[in-house]
Amino acid sequence: TGVDHFGFNIDRTFKQRYLIADNYWKEDGGSILFYTGNEGDIIWFCNNTGFMWDIAEEMKAMLVFAEHRYYGESLPFGADSFSDSRHLNFLTTEQALADFAKLIRYLKRTIPGARNQPVIALGGSYGGMLAAWFRMKYPHLVVGALASSAPIWQFNDLVPCDIFMKIVTTDFSQSGPNCSESIRRSWDAINRLAKKGPGLRWLSEALHLCTPLTKSQDVQRLKDWISETWVNVAMVDYPYESNFLQPLPAWPVKVVCQYFKYSNVPDTVMVQNIFQALNVYYNYSGQAKCLNVSETATSSLGVLGWSYQACTEMVMPTCSDGVDDMFEPHSWNMKEYSDDCFKQWGVRPRPSWIPTMYGGKNISSHTNIIFSNGELDPWSGGGVTKDITDTLLAIVIPNGAHHLDLRASNALDPVSVQLTRSLEVKYMKQWISDFYVRLRKMN
Amino acid sequence: TGVDHFGFNIDRTFKQRYLIADNYWKEDGGSILFYTGNEGDIIWFCNNTGFMWDIAEEMKAMLVFAEHRYYGESLPFGADSFSDSRHLNFLTTEQALADFAKLIRYLKRTIPGARNQPVIALGGSYGGMLAAWFRMKYPHLVVGALASSAPIWQFNDLVPCDIFMKIVTTDFSQSGPNCSESIRRSWDAINRLAKKGPGLRWLSEALHLCTPLTKSQDVQRLKDWISETWVNVAMVDYPYESNFLQPLPAWPVKVVCQYFKYSNVPDTVMVQNIFQALNVYYNYSGQAKCLNVSETATSSLGVLGWSYQACTEMVMPTCSDGVDDMFEPHSWNMKEYSDDCFKQWGVRPRPSWIPTMYGGKNISSHTNIIFSNGELDPWSGGGVTKDITDTLLAIVIPNGAHHLDLRASNALDPVSVQLTRSLEVKYMKQWISDFYVRLRKMN
Repeated sequence: TGVDHFGFNIDRTFKQRYLIADNYWKEDGGSILFYTGNEGDIIWFCNNTGFMWDIAEEMKAMLVFAEHRYYGESLPFGADSFSDSRHLNFLTTEQALADFAKLIRYLKRTIPGARNQPVIALGGSYGGMLAAWFRMKYPHLVVGALASSAPIWQFNDLVPCDIFMKIVTTDFSQSGPNCSESIRRSWDAINRLAKKGPGLRWLSEALHLCTPLTKSQDVQRLKDWISETWVNVAMVDYPYESNFLQPLPAWPVKVVCQYFKYSNVPDTVMVQNIFQALNVYYNYSGQAKCLNVSETATSSLGVLGWSYQACTEMVMPTCSDGVDDMFEPHSWNMKEYSDDCFKQWGVRPRPSWIPTMYGGKNISSHTNIIFSNGELDPWSGGGVTKDITDTLLAIVIPNGAHHLDLRASNALDPVSVQLTRSLEVKYMKQWISDFYVRLRKMN
Repeated sequence: TGVDHFGFNIDRTFKQRYLIADNYWKEDGGSILFYTGNEGDIIWFCNNTGFMWDIAEEMKAMLVFAEHRYYGESLPFGADSFSDSRHLNFLTTEQALADFAKLIRYLKRTIPGARNQPVIALGGSYGGMLAAWFRMKYPHLVVGALASSAPIWQFNDLVPCDIFMKIVTTDFSQSGPNCSESIRRSWDAINRLAKKGPGLRWLSEALHLCTPLTKSQDVQRLKDWISETWVNVAMVDYPYESNFLQPLPAWPVKVVCQYFKYSNVPDTVMVQNIFQALNVYYNYSGQAKCLNVSETATSSLGVLGWSYQACTEMVMPTCSDGVDDMFEPHSWNMKEYSDDCFKQWGVRPRPSWIPTMYGGKNISSHTNIIFSNGELDPWSGGGVTKDITDTLLAIVIPNGAHHLDLRASNALDPVSVQLTRSLEVKYMKQWISDFYVRLRKMN
């Protein structure tokens, strides 16, 4: 597809990867389920979106998984794609949506029988935002969208910046006695130990870090990494053994919380408990020899690309106060954030752009979008959790973590997610039958 | 505003011009009528959109006229704006719509009392397309759009390419006996004369050309210029004396046709008649000493910018066959068109982009757009002339030329355009009152 859909000076093209499965596709009365790929390798998302595979037969659907530009193998400038802000200039949501639009038109033109079929956009997390935005901006190409765990309101001041960390904290509070309180106290335990003479060395050994801490900034990095780990565990708090960001046991927050039963323990014991808890996330397999402070999730996620996106369009403010949440106080400082972005990428974020482009809270004139959110998912704080109109629907999954509904059905699924999925199928079938009714009227 | 809304590498800004009139604006129950500027100086459009001024009091409306980037004084790179394809790279409909979006948000933020007011987009011709597209893409910013004479379907193969010239021809057929037939024959008269020895010189003198014809390509240029003149006269065939593209008498096509009553005349007489007819358009004031083949319309239109847009996004195919229309046969040759564009601007057009972006004929999921078209207007062939849904409405004005409804009311206006305007006001008031009902519900 074209590298720049919004300018004509650069006429370069690149290969966008997409996957197609048509085993259950029927030309007669069928549909096309189109996954709007997010910030990672599309094969990984394809393998973690079992819901689409589970419903393909019932929906007589062709499955399409479209990779997002600058991720996986869809690199506009090959190995140079991340070399500087000039090469990164085409990594935006608008370009990505235009890629999807051109791909759908291409598929309809080239696959016999696909032309007069309804397409539904589906996606989770950032991909869920893209699915929703795609329906908003290209309603002529998709009859509806399922946006799972899509925090389309985690921008600007649309929601309070502390909502994210509050939800993480609630998950931990509910998953074991004293759990969030212990974690709230753990930061100072680390701080106190770090200040002592051999503290950094002791911490490095107690936490089995691959690279020992040597300076005081390393301690901040360590705490940031641990915070991010608890956030990630909350996101993937699935009811069964899984392997999304990392291989994990069922209900991993509960497992982590087993090590935080007591908040009044000596600092050294607290750190040893942190180590045990970190092991749940980083060493469920038992193979890890040490813990790497620079990694928090699967390498299938495109960390570099996302860092650039977070420094341009995808500015999603978060903050914590240490009182209503279990993290160290951290205010949101746009100036500092912008300066850091400029240092790293040579660009400055435009935090109000996404609400300008995609409507912020004022989206009621759109139709046929399902917003599903798990109540355990910290991203649900920036999501749509109440119906906006008859056709802009919100589904909340009480025991659900990050886009649980998009995962393959599992014997351990709570009833709530089973119901969610059947509701989703019901609405999607309605969009499809509405489409065929209109088509018949026109002919 | 920003030069590039869709990329972050270039952080440059420029001054966008806009005009505001708030004489009749009321904070209480008022509205904002926002003219989406098109390819020219905004003051000129402002002066030719009397409709907005006529209804300002009734609508308690603030009037805003926003200039389109790369036209008038809104030049992203000042005098260098047209220097090459690199500087022209930001001249697209998407950037222009984003300018409008940011301007509306800015006005709402900075003008006390404007925040909670409904905005309606209005525009004519290309500006009408922008108004319609603006409502489609930014429905959170405008409650509706009045798109007057907006040929949103004059792209790709959405309508037959010969429809435009057919309508011009019908206008001339209906405006005088033998008129279109005479014009159809006039091309060969020119051709025959041009072939003779002193033909070019004779033609140059008979037509009082400022620059004499010297080579055979000049003859093609001459005929193209004459064709374009008839097209323009058809576009501005207003029922009263006017000065839009040129100062003109009432019903100028009728006046032109007075010189084409006889189709069977010697070639020299035919050319003398052409000269008289051209004078209606180019010399109504009687001041012109000669006719200039390189000019067809007011200098308030940005010819350079539009030529670039026509070579990138705004590819609007036209053709003629000389049988169903009065022009020389001219097929639509995309390859040739693209090569010419590449020669002139170093860019190649993407003819299917506009339908991909803005939906082509499949726009029924949008709401609150009025498409008005004059039946005399050649651009009505690419316009929406039938209701699409209850809220995507078409109004056809039988005796109307190019966006007649947007012009100031005039004693000589046909009843049809008076009715059109009152319908338009009725719908716009409905959108406004719907807006206030929703607003009250929310508070």
